[in-house]
Amino acid sequence: MGNIDIKNAPVGVFDSGVGGLTVAREIMRQMPNERIVYFGDTARVPYGSKSKATIIRYSRQIINFLKTKEVKAIVVACNTASAYALEELRGELDIPIIGVVKPGAEVAANITKNGKIGVIGTVGTIESKLYNKCIREHNESAEVFGTPCPLFVPLVEEGWINDTVTMEVAKRYLAPLQDTGIDTLILGCTHYPLLRNLIGEIMGNDVTLVNPAYETAVKLSKMLEESGIKCDAPVKARAPHEFFVSDAAERFMSFANSILPYDVDTTKVVSIEEY
Amino acid sequence: MGNIDIKNAPVGVFDSGVGGLTVAREIMRQMPNERIVYFGDTARVPYGSKSKATIIRYSRQIINFLKTKEVKAIVVACNTASAYALEELRGELDIPIIGVVKPGAEVAANITKNGKIGVIGTVGTIESKLYNKCIREHNESAEVFGTPCPLFVPLVEEGWINDTVTMEVAKRYLAPLQDTGIDTLILGCTHYPLLRNLIGEIMGNDVTLVNPAYETAVKLSKMLEESGIKCDAPVKARAPHEFFVSDAAERFMSFANSILPYDVDTTKVVSIEEY
Repeated sequence: MGNIDIKNAPVGVFDSGVGGLTVAREIMRQMPNERIVYFGDTARVPYGSKSKATIIRYSRQIINFLKTKEVKAIVVACNTASAYALEELRGELDIPIIGVVKPGAEVAANITKNGKIGVIGTVGTIESKLYNKCIREHNESAEVFGTPCPLFVPLVEEGWINDTVTMEVAKRYLAPLQDTGIDTLILGCTHYPLLRNLIGEIMGNDVTLVNPAYETAVKLSKMLEESGIKCDAPVKARAPHEFFVSDAAERFMSFANSILPYDVDTTKVVSIEEY
Repeated sequence: MGNIDIKNAPVGVFDSGVGGLTVAREIMRQMPNERIVYFGDTARVPYGSKSKATIIRYSRQIINFLKTKEVKAIVVACNTASAYALEELRGELDIPIIGVVKPGAEVAANITKNGKIGVIGTVGTIESKLYNKCIREHNESAEVFGTPCPLFVPLVEEGWINDTVTMEVAKRYLAPLQDTGIDTLILGCTHYPLLRNLIGEIMGNDVTLVNPAYETAVKLSKMLEESGIKCDAPVKARAPHEFFVSDAAERFMSFANSILPYDVDTTKVVSIEEY
């Protein structure tokens, strides 16, 4: 590909399901010129309970698929795949790849004033202590308090985002964190930014919320700039964003249209096991 | 095996995860002499969004594993596997096998007085209309009203069983069913019997709840009796129940101990893809 072709190539974004759409949304907002090819592995969701070897195999298949779309960079918009597969896959690729864990951890480590950082996520993410490890790489003395919030994903997927039930659930999950004195809270699951207002209301103004989806898009922007492959032509003048899943395209599309600043009118089902 | 050996052989019970434990619980209550070998496919849960071919393949692997435990009969304690794999697998087996859908559907079809039957379940179960089909085989003129309740499974798995949040969620899900005039309601997901009291309180005394876990155990008892392989020696005099999963044994065991009338002190992880 020539340099102009590379600039016009899309960014590949993948997740185990719909959660990574919050990352796609941030990319659309911050880099309206970039075109996205999104893959959601809706047939094999959730990744959280699967082994490292399986996650690497799944991620490799998805990357093989994204390569057929000639992507210029890849965003692993899934906490589990970022944790288990990112370093392994980076060595196999000749295009840039970033995950969602490090950008959020780095920002939290740098902005905390009292060194007390909270992390909320799925049971898998919290038990893996991956955020703790990444935070300490930038702030050795930070204290990290992790709390799993297992009902947040199903509540978001049910569409109960500004809802009295969700508020009640959030109050219960966040109560132990409120007692720790944290001044920074990482929304450590791709679904959680959709509950940001509600979580902010409960935690109050003294706690800064870190949205890894936002920070990942910031990092992607820098990376594309530095590599000289950032697009400068408006996306509307070119092919539109594309969406692919491994199952249940209708359900995916309805969720996508409820959160993206973009009208998703087609989602194709891919036999991902063949890649 | 001789006849006494067959009588003493265990019953294999499997599910995509922990839900089928409600069926194991009913078997323990109704047939305290029977020994159970339970397999929960916790690494590949949920089955609801997977294709028929995949579900058949997974079920076949699990049955191959259960056969190594010399089970005398198999209970498919999972709605999706009952729907997709049961008939296919029956032809391959030389021991009896039953599922959870037909026993509940048959009872509901027979006990309804006004011919209006409600079914609650996962999105997959409701969209498949399998209960509708099975009910109509016994009651051609029955009207069936299905409502998915996607948050019930995560709420039960979080242990919020007698809980104000769960009550609020249930009221919202069941409201449309209350307007239909049903006199019978099938709890069409293996987790839902754990919410029976709460659902009963909302639906009132005029609606009879059908618990497929209970009806499946009743049918199993008849089947073992008719085949002359029902156990007559107390389970305590023999090997205890056994529990196997494909991942996350600790989490499984803690859930099992919260609902079973039996102390689960060991759960082994099986590499089910090798069977």
